[in-house]
Amino acid sequence: MGGHSNLDRVGVGLIGFGTIGTGVVKVLRDNASVIEQRLGCELRLVRIADLDLDTDRGVDLSGIRFDADASALIADPDVQIVIELIGGYDVPRKFILEALASGKHVVTANKALLALHGREIFGAASAAGREIAFEAAVGGGIPILRSLREGLAANQIESVLGILNGTTNYMLGEMESTGEDFDVVLKRAQELGYAEADPSFDVDGIDAAHKLVLLTTMAFGAELTFEEIPTEGIRQLSPLDFELAAEFGYRIKLLGIARCHRAADGGERIEVRVQPTMVPASSLLAKVEGAMNAVEVRGNAVGPTFYYGAGAGEMPTASAVVADLMEIAREIRRGGSGRVAPLSYLPEHIEAKPIMPDGEISGRAFLRMTARDHSGILGLISSALGEEGVGLESIVAREQAGLSTGLISVIALTRVATEQALRRALEQISSLSDISGSPRLIRIEEEV
Amino acid sequence: MGGHSNLDRVGVGLIGFGTIGTGVVKVLRDNASVIEQRLGCELRLVRIADLDLDTDRGVDLSGIRFDADASALIADPDVQIVIELIGGYDVPRKFILEALASGKHVVTANKALLALHGREIFGAASAAGREIAFEAAVGGGIPILRSLREGLAANQIESVLGILNGTTNYMLGEMESTGEDFDVVLKRAQELGYAEADPSFDVDGIDAAHKLVLLTTMAFGAELTFEEIPTEGIRQLSPLDFELAAEFGYRIKLLGIARCHRAADGGERIEVRVQPTMVPASSLLAKVEGAMNAVEVRGNAVGPTFYYGAGAGEMPTASAVVADLMEIAREIRRGGSGRVAPLSYLPEHIEAKPIMPDGEISGRAFLRMTARDHSGILGLISSALGEEGVGLESIVAREQAGLSTGLISVIALTRVATEQALRRALEQISSLSDISGSPRLIRIEEEV
Repeated sequence: MGGHSNLDRVGVGLIGFGTIGTGVVKVLRDNASVIEQRLGCELRLVRIADLDLDTDRGVDLSGIRFDADASALIADPDVQIVIELIGGYDVPRKFILEALASGKHVVTANKALLALHGREIFGAASAAGREIAFEAAVGGGIPILRSLREGLAANQIESVLGILNGTTNYMLGEMESTGEDFDVVLKRAQELGYAEADPSFDVDGIDAAHKLVLLTTMAFGAELTFEEIPTEGIRQLSPLDFELAAEFGYRIKLLGIARCHRAADGGERIEVRVQPTMVPASSLLAKVEGAMNAVEVRGNAVGPTFYYGAGAGEMPTASAVVADLMEIAREIRRGGSGRVAPLSYLPEHIEAKPIMPDGEISGRAFLRMTARDHSGILGLISSALGEEGVGLESIVAREQAGLSTGLISVIALTRVATEQALRRALEQISSLSDISGSPRLIRIEEEV
Repeated sequence: MGGHSNLDRVGVGLIGFGTIGTGVVKVLRDNASVIEQRLGCELRLVRIADLDLDTDRGVDLSGIRFDADASALIADPDVQIVIELIGGYDVPRKFILEALASGKHVVTANKALLALHGREIFGAASAAGREIAFEAAVGGGIPILRSLREGLAANQIESVLGILNGTTNYMLGEMESTGEDFDVVLKRAQELGYAEADPSFDVDGIDAAHKLVLLTTMAFGAELTFEEIPTEGIRQLSPLDFELAAEFGYRIKLLGIARCHRAADGGERIEVRVQPTMVPASSLLAKVEGAMNAVEVRGNAVGPTFYYGAGAGEMPTASAVVADLMEIAREIRRGGSGRVAPLSYLPEHIEAKPIMPDGEISGRAFLRMTARDHSGILGLISSALGEEGVGLESIVAREQAGLSTGLISVIALTRVATEQALRRALEQISSLSDISGSPRLIRIEEEV
């Protein structure tokens, strides 16, 4: 029989030998001793498959079979856990399903795949009685999924929200500190390797929304699709937004936000979205700099909790992948599987729940508009807001460099109002002859 | 047979019906539905033991047997998991050992007991093949122990440091914002119920040191005793310390700090201490307000990570206790135990490791002294520091309200220096005729 009968080691196969894959090789080698001291057995990487056999990854591969044949890796009896780190949809989906059908456990970091094909993949794992682990898919090295699944398991989760994409967090920081436009900062981020040649996954909020699908399901037992998440990226932000945010005591972060609104009769509605958001400069979220990630989770017993760390990168992501290997290796050695439901709720308790319509989502907002400067202008705007039930916390007229003579910026901070009321008020304001161009709306979240 | 043969529910007994115990009853009742949707069975509280049978805890106890007989609770065949929430040493130690010997699993929040009698208790659990779970013992509701034990298990942990005591964090915030002395703030904290009548556990850093024992063992596999941790509390801090800290861009926090220094030859030395520490005002730790807790963990793969939440209190602590119940219930239903080593390392890999002598610990420091005002004073002090190899980042002379005529405050921020060098330099400075009283030393940590 192959190595799977040996309790002193668990055999691992790696499909996809890019940056993260290289990190996994390094962690398994560099930390072999501590891993064994905690686990009680060796995690042995027996085989790697990748189409690129030529690039020197700078790691010692002695004792590891390396070829381009992923299916042979999956079929190898010495491989008990298959790590999928290819990225994309069709090919990894095929390999993951093949691995599960072959009785292998699977570790993946592929949030896009899980967000779009989660039902099929989790179903296949459950049917096969095999583990599917994906801590690295959200928040990189931060053990946020484990915390939701086990550490906070006694709670009704009220909200999960956070900085889920490092590239955009880095870019927002650059825009804020340099006063440069989005395009300039994007170009530099691409030159530095922080942003992809096609940046839309990051800058349009798609990557954050993929991660939010997983967080929302795990937090509330709510099945939802990626398409159901209203997603706004960071392309529309201007240097002036950052300047004014700072002036009013805020920073702008791209947040993924999911909340569960529970009615007295037990009915639940899910509020979910990805959007640039103002957070108080004194909050923990505001202190998340560069490409770091952070997630805030509120539970009905624990209150607010906050988790921070590197959201991407070779070694942090590998840290999460190898933690998953260790968890599965424990199960293999004990002859079990399915200890914890991968999505935190047992499959029979995950169901579609009503998504709160955009218009009903309420919160405070920052509004900015360009107006003709006259003594009645703040009154006009305030009245338009008030007529739609949007209360004001403050409204400020401000001379603005770059505006034509006779024009000013007006900034309004509203009280809690629904999106619907805000939109209607903004429509009315847009139609005023004193207003030039479209008003700008940025949501405010008052969190930890 | 009793309820322990029923897979649809797991029976729980609670010893100690105070604040946290009441929280556990509430969480088990209020969140029963979500707990069952995640766990697949009911956690049923069948029995409570407490000497105080009279106080109304404001929770419905229907269906729960409540008496003063802890031993009968332990012996009850319907009780599979015993929760110990008494506090203290001798009595809970007796009950925990009795429960383990009776084949019961144990959940406790008692850090003092585990810090002082951990070897005996963990040994008894291991010998009995039963679980001992204690997430609530450190950081209250923050799932920090689980994160160390599983989420970061693939890492060589480099450091663990944090705000481990909410009472002192609240008091430091009060001293900073009001400018009041320690005694005044302590008295108010006692009146508000934030501090105990005998506050020494909190304000002398004892509680933080208890927690640090557990964190240090789990992070580095290092067995150590509470007495080995140099512990300094917050009694010595004065309003001026806070004022000057703010002026130089710092806040003062009571930190528990543990680091593992790994030599090239594999030798390890543990740096460990509890002390008031200056952290940059822009750091995440500096943003931890009121009675909240936070822990920063650095791993060689994951880099810095940070965890924040309520470190104490009825519901947050109960959140952690019930998470432990759920983890054990999973094991009971699967007929297993010992899935993960409770102290993260397998018992045979936990050993005493050399503690770094105080004097060799190095870092930056904030020094404050009172000196006679003359043109050569900064030169004199700088020279004394320099002679002992303590480099300066800045040194500032400052007139100080409250000082006699002719006296000034001198504040020095040093570069990285050993404690030994600093102490020698401070001795030399103390002996200068221009220096009045003892110089004040506060450590600086530059962390996330």
